[in-house]
Amino acid sequence: MAQQGTSSGHPIAVLNNDIVHRLPAQSPMLFAAKKEKNLSFETIAQALGREEVAVAALFYGQAKASPEDIANLSKVLGISEEELNKTEMTGWPDRGRQMEMPPKEPLVYRLFEIVQNYGYAYKAVMNEKFGDGIMSAITFSTKVEREVDEKGEWCKITLRGKWLPYSRF
Amino acid sequence: MAQQGTSSGHPIAVLNNDIVHRLPAQSPMLFAAKKEKNLSFETIAQALGREEVAVAALFYGQAKASPEDIANLSKVLGISEEELNKTEMTGWPDRGRQMEMPPKEPLVYRLFEIVQNYGYAYKAVMNEKFGDGIMSAITFSTKVEREVDEKGEWCKITLRGKWLPYSRF
Amino acid sequence: MAQQGTSSGHPIAVLNNDIVHRLPAQSPMLFAAKKEKNLSFETIAQALGREEVAVAALFYGQAKASPEDIANLSKVLGISEEELNKTEMTGWPDRGRQMEMPPKEPLVYRLFEIVQNYGYAYKAVMNEKFGDGIMSAITFSTKVEREVDEKGEWCKITLRGKWLPYSRF
Amino acid sequence: MAQQGTSSGHPIAVLNNDIVHRLPAQSPMLFAAKKEKNLSFETIAQALGREEVAVAALFYGQAKASPEDIANLSKVLGISEEELNKTEMTGWPDRGRQMEMPPKEPLVYRLFEIVQNYGYAYKAVMNEKFGDGIMSAITFSTKVEREVDEKGEWCKITLRGKWLPYSRF
Amino acid sequence: MAQQGTSSGHPIAVLNNDIVHRLPAQSPMLFAAKKEKNLSFETIAQALGREEVAVAALFYGQAKASPEDIANLSKVLGISEEELNKTEMTGWPDRGRQMEMPPKEPLVYRLFEIVQNYGYAYKAVMNEKFGDGIMSAITFSTKVEREVDEKGEWCKITLRGKWLPYSRF
Amino acid sequence: MAQQGTSSGHPIAVLNNDIVHRLPAQSPMLFAAKKEKNLSFETIAQALGREEVAVAALFYGQAKASPEDIANLSKVLGISEEELNKTEMTGWPDRGRQMEMPPKEPLVYRLFEIVQNYGYAYKAVMNEKFGDGIMSAITFSTKVEREVDEKGEWCKITLRGKWLPYSRF
Amino acid sequence: MAQQGTSSGHPIAVLNNDIVHRLPAQSPMLFAAKKEKNLSFETIAQALGREEVAVAALFYGQAKASPEDIANLSKVLGISEEELNKTEMTGWPDRGRQMEMPPKEPLVYRLFEIVQNYGYAYKAVMNEKFGDGIMSAITFSTKVEREVDEKGEWCKITLRGKWLPYSRF
Amino acid sequence: MAQQGTSSGHPIAVLNNDIVHRLPAQSPMLFAAKKEKNLSFETIAQALGREEVAVAALFYGQAKASPEDIANLSKVLGISEEELNKTEMTGWPDRGRQMEMPPKEPLVYRLFEIVQNYGYAYKAVMNEKFGDGIMSAITFSTKVEREVDEKGEWCKITLRGKWLPYSRF
Amino acid sequence: MAQQGTSSGHPIAVLNNDIVHRLPAQSPMLFAAKKEKNLSFETIAQALGREEVAVAALFYGQAKASPEDIANLSKVLGISEEELNKTEMTGWPDRGRQMEMPPKEPLVYRLFEIVQNYGYAYKAVMNEKFGDGIMSAITFSTKVEREVDEKGEWCKITLRGKWLPYSRF
Amino acid sequence: MAQQGTSSGHPIAVLNNDIVHRLPAQSPMLFAAKKEKNLSFETIAQALGREEVAVAALFYGQAKASPEDIANLSKVLGISEEELNKTEMTGWPDRGRQMEMPPKEPLVYRLFEIVQNYGYAYKAVMNEKFGDGIMSAITFSTKVEREVDEKGEWCKITLRGKWLPYSRF
Repeated sequence: MAQQGTSSGHPIAVLNNDIVHRLPAQSPMLFAAKKEKNLSFETIAQALGREEVAVAALFYGQAKASPEDIANLSKVLGISEEELNKTEMTGWPDRGRQMEMPPKEPLVYRLFEIVQNYGYAYKAVMNEKFGDGIMSAITFSTKVEREVDEKGEWCKITLRGKWLPYSRF
Repeated sequence: MAQQGTSSGHPIAVLNNDIVHRLPAQSPMLFAAKKEKNLSFETIAQALGREEVAVAALFYGQAKASPEDIANLSKVLGISEEELNKTEMTGWPDRGRQMEMPPKEPLVYRLFEIVQNYGYAYKAVMNEKFGDGIMSAITFSTKVEREVDEKGEWCKITLRGKWLPYSRF
Repeated sequence: MAQQGTSSGHPIAVLNNDIVHRLPAQSPMLFAAKKEKNLSFETIAQALGREEVAVAALFYGQAKASPEDIANLSKVLGISEEELNKTEMTGWPDRGRQMEMPPKEPLVYRLFEIVQNYGYAYKAVMNEKFGDGIMSAITFSTKVEREVDEKGEWCKITLRGKWLPYSRF
Repeated sequence: MAQQGTSSGHPIAVLNNDIVHRLPAQSPMLFAAKKEKNLSFETIAQALGREEVAVAALFYGQAKASPEDIANLSKVLGISEEELNKTEMTGWPDRGRQMEMPPKEPLVYRLFEIVQNYGYAYKAVMNEKFGDGIMSAITFSTKVEREVDEKGEWCKITLRGKWLPYSRF
Repeated sequence: MAQQGTSSGHPIAVLNNDIVHRLPAQSPMLFAAKKEKNLSFETIAQALGREEVAVAALFYGQAKASPEDIANLSKVLGISEEELNKTEMTGWPDRGRQMEMPPKEPLVYRLFEIVQNYGYAYKAVMNEKFGDGIMSAITFSTKVEREVDEKGEWCKITLRGKWLPYSRF
Repeated sequence: MAQQGTSSGHPIAVLNNDIVHRLPAQSPMLFAAKKEKNLSFETIAQALGREEVAVAALFYGQAKASPEDIANLSKVLGISEEELNKTEMTGWPDRGRQMEMPPKEPLVYRLFEIVQNYGYAYKAVMNEKFGDGIMSAITFSTKVEREVDEKGEWCKITLRGKWLPYSRF
Repeated sequence: MAQQGTSSGHPIAVLNNDIVHRLPAQSPMLFAAKKEKNLSFETIAQALGREEVAVAALFYGQAKASPEDIANLSKVLGISEEELNKTEMTGWPDRGRQMEMPPKEPLVYRLFEIVQNYGYAYKAVMNEKFGDGIMSAITFSTKVEREVDEKGEWCKITLRGKWLPYSRF
Repeated sequence: MAQQGTSSGHPIAVLNNDIVHRLPAQSPMLFAAKKEKNLSFETIAQALGREEVAVAALFYGQAKASPEDIANLSKVLGISEEELNKTEMTGWPDRGRQMEMPPKEPLVYRLFEIVQNYGYAYKAVMNEKFGDGIMSAITFSTKVEREVDEKGEWCKITLRGKWLPYSRF
Repeated sequence: MAQQGTSSGHPIAVLNNDIVHRLPAQSPMLFAAKKEKNLSFETIAQALGREEVAVAALFYGQAKASPEDIANLSKVLGISEEELNKTEMTGWPDRGRQMEMPPKEPLVYRLFEIVQNYGYAYKAVMNEKFGDGIMSAITFSTKVEREVDEKGEWCKITLRGKWLPYSRF
Repeated sequence: MAQQGTSSGHPIAVLNNDIVHRLPAQSPMLFAAKKEKNLSFETIAQALGREEVAVAALFYGQAKASPEDIANLSKVLGISEEELNKTEMTGWPDRGRQMEMPPKEPLVYRLFEIVQNYGYAYKAVMNEKFGDGIMSAITFSTKVEREVDEKGEWCKITLRGKWLPYSRF
């Protein structure tokens, strides 16, 4: 049986009902099972063999579940595959609509502020390192790690994307 | 004498004149010297003992130069400390105004899109790992790295900030 | 039994139903109990050992309740801990979404206007006093006090946050 | 002769030239003299018998100078009263236009975020304490203080305004 | 028994249901009683000893009812005081949210346009007459009057507010 | 010779240079003469036989000068009619562009807030008094008056416009 | 009995349910009867002695029905006058809120684009023809006509409004 | 020689200099010649064999001049064809940028308001008359006419565009 | 019987329920039948003799169904023509409202970005090829094709519209 | 020597000076040479071996010139390579800022409208054909073609981008 609660000792994340209307129909079902079983995204991510952020994105309808994900979610959440397949999880995610921009949530705003403050700096450095192009947000992965030192806790976010040079045409 | 050009072989980044009106007065002077001497941010960053993104941010007026930075910039750019000190570099940065949000530049938009798509996912994972708080964008550092594998070039951005729990009051 | 009404003699604050859709599910329950028992935020704050603004923020879903808060809220509001724990109060607040910006409410607009008018003045004074950084809104507390003199009533709001200097990187 | 620099040892605040077009004509003249003489707002405020924030607001064109202020500014800055009187300082401030809202500057954004997160909480507490009305932002004063304890530096901002009850009509 | 209909012979104002979601819970109840009894705001205002605009604002949740207002409303509308007191009328109004700005309604847009066109003119004239300050919108009253001359009907709106000079601090 | 200064003893209104780019070419010339001769809008209005607000609007390019106005302005300001006629004063005003909406200036914001808070109340009362239509902002006049009582100074603004019923078609 | 369908042979216009929440309560009832009886706006307009656009505006809650309109609508739609009078049709229209601006609908966008492209051209021509003023949108009528020539079908829209010169005050 | 002034007796329209930065380079030259020679758009339109609105649009850079227009403009304005051909008049208009939307100018706002209020009504009537499509704003003409009756002056604007049915694909 | 699933092997597209409120009433019914029968837009498009994008637009309420479309949809989806005809499919589409702009969905944003980046380039090239005018979005068709080469899969979108030259008037 | 004018007989595209402030410094130089030599983008594109849209994008600063492009541009435009290399053409484009969104230009708006109307339809069809991913706007090419048939001229735009599937992580 899956590990209860988080490894950090903090409570698990559940769904805030006031954004439900921006989420696909499966989100409340998934979060309800998560709450019922008291599962962290870390635990679910291990069951799916995926990153925590990817799994959380899946719960918020921002990523697509593969058939294997469905099978694993079914096991870890105790929802039948049939029921999961009835939802939009078998459809294609309509990404980006769950978040108002600029974000009002202080945690998310800090990420937005980093883009706002360092946007041109990132661009200049990336152009010098890679040439004319972009870092893909599609051929892309991201993770969150916790580091502790004598000054306290640090949050480390890694963004890793394929470099795509502009086509010459 | 400092290394000419970039280690990647791509041309160095210079200033696009159509955003000059959003930048502090020293930006054109710094970029002109950079262009004149054909220096990459990598080279300047080594001379200052700082990260490339921090140095680029400094050129765009988004970070503050310490007296040591001034001394080192003076050497590497060939501008007298006196002249550098006459500019706003001795003042306090007015951050965030160089970038329109949402960003129109495709490279920067991809970073914005990552926040838009994964905002709630990051929040849920970070709350489970750290509790109620935010990752500081002030007690913070960031860097850009290049990785190459058989699939091509990958851009890796690391964001690392102090975790700040909400005060109970 | 808790003190009825406010110490000022003004009626207690209750929930305006037209913002319910922006609030977490527990807000109507908490406000209903507050109304039923005719309790001021001052009284509830004393029961929780917290500041009034923090407690009001908690009712509006803008702050997190600790287990002790839950226990104390249960007592003062007459709602079982079990019932309180079933709500999102055990989740993580999704802050900032209850308020439209710029605020239309005249009382809140005045606070917004202070930021609008004195923003750069605060920044200049704070930079001279503390250097390059920000006052944290997370490691932070605030309170409202009432002062009376011959000219009438005065409202005093105190904002107190940790000073965070920008990291050099 | 006035004290040079700040009492904190941090450099003084000078004018960022990229907002000059939003400021009245006297701002660059005042800031130039401040820079030339290396005066902090603390020092100038003492010379004027006013609060630092008020004086900084005056430099940014967000407050009106009285004839006494002109006389004192003339002395401390070494600009003739005649020259000061030729500027818009003898006119009426056009307040609020120097700041874009929402603010992009991280320091100012934190103040905006406090209003965004705690707006309704302030309102509820203030209504219970004072009744139906607002805290005036006109019959109003504000100050910034620095406090130090074992956890480091703290910034304390006080907002104090006359309570204005809504007229019954 | 109260006068039926308006003194002008025009039908009374009733509630447009498509803005109900922006109004407090008592608005539909108040307007329903007004419609049922065919009462004009003029008639209700006389019963309350208040101005018509104030009473209409009260119906739209933009003003607070005093206990005497409740008693009078109960009589004129035929709703028990108990029922009225159960609503948010005993709470504090959340003002300004019923109206989208810029207003789309032509009648209200004309008022908005007057502010847009004559804003600086009002300011200049008021500064010359009163000095540096504002006309309060809180210590304030307003009324609408009808005048007829040979050219037809004229609408006269009077805005009257306390002059608040800026504090020197 | 015209009266110097204002009758209130407050300084006259002059032009804030940071809005010049939104004004027609004659505004700086008119305000310069007003400043030079130290004339209030009250004095100029008497010379033109018009309301102060109308004259201020004329200075801000929000109203049209008639040939008589030109003649009178020429006398009171000491600018030749020929010079005045060379400007856009002989053209048609491009109204409304001098003011950003929502207004940031606190004095003007208060007027905006009155429209925002009482918009529907005005509409309901006006519909009951006049039927289906609007108060014209074109066939319209406005004035500002100062009233003093034991509570202090009051500002009274009168808006008076022709009632226009909707055509039936 | 009224003519079925349109004279053009195109289907009649019915209500799109996704804008119902922006419309007054009578709109669905009116459109349902129109659909049930398969009536064009042309047919209904003839029954009311009004223009088609006015009648369509009435169905969308953008115009007021007179008692005669109610009587005629009752006949042509087969709804009792009593039932019609129970709705907001007896109230005052809250105009302009059914349409998002800029319009997304291509047909309506083309009208918006005409205002955007030719706005200043209309103004210059109208000022030369009529002086300083506006064309009223209240004392106003409009109609749509169909013209056919060898190039195909043409749509002709006529806007006709009273010219209102600015008052001199 | 061309007729001086307007046939209405109102002054001719000249250029408001505060929108010059939104106009192509030829606009000030064209308006200067128009002012110099005191020509109405009516007179120039006759010289070009075009509608007044089209000619005004041409002056504002919202329409393209043909070689014949250049020849005729040269004659009526007294500017050599060579000089006219040097400007952007030989390029392609960048339409729509001269006007801020929503328009602040009251005259233009009234046109915008007509689209806002009657948008869906026009659509419903046009769909019934023409089917599924739009009225072209490209294969399009418009004119302004003045009508006088016992009630005063009326402005009549005609919009006439080709009906374009949606392609079936 | 119609082909099940897609020819690509990817799952079919179904409806995301969180945009249902922006769609006409028939959309959920059509998508439910599509899901029930597991039909791709390719299959349905073949049954209707139309392009896939046109059919998908029809499902989202962005295109009009002809009587033949209704007949064919009835067959392929197994819904009676009567039931289809009861919906808004017999009305006129209210286009453009299903999509927020700028689009948050990454796939759609890329199309938006192409317009943003290449807008003026398209215009210059099209003006040189066709003169002064536009490509119609009404007399228009579009299709999506899949191409495969050694570098992988390519998506080819074709937009084809009638060229409409501006009328001279 | 390069072909003069366009192959269509329409005049060549030149620079509209009112967008110059949004363009990089080389744009006016490039367009001036294009105008001087009367060269179409078709002619320049042939000289560079690139697509017309790409070359126009290069002139507007929306694409990067390679050393070969510089050499070819130098020849066809008659500007020395040294002079071209002194501009930002050797830097990295800051894309997307030349265009306001939503676009006001009718030609560009039509492209925007296509995205607005068909956005979800494209997405559904592309998901069925390719799975979960996007069409790249970076590994991308586009072209404009002219087709003529008995109905007149048709504009065909092709967008071709690499399909990028979302990474599983």
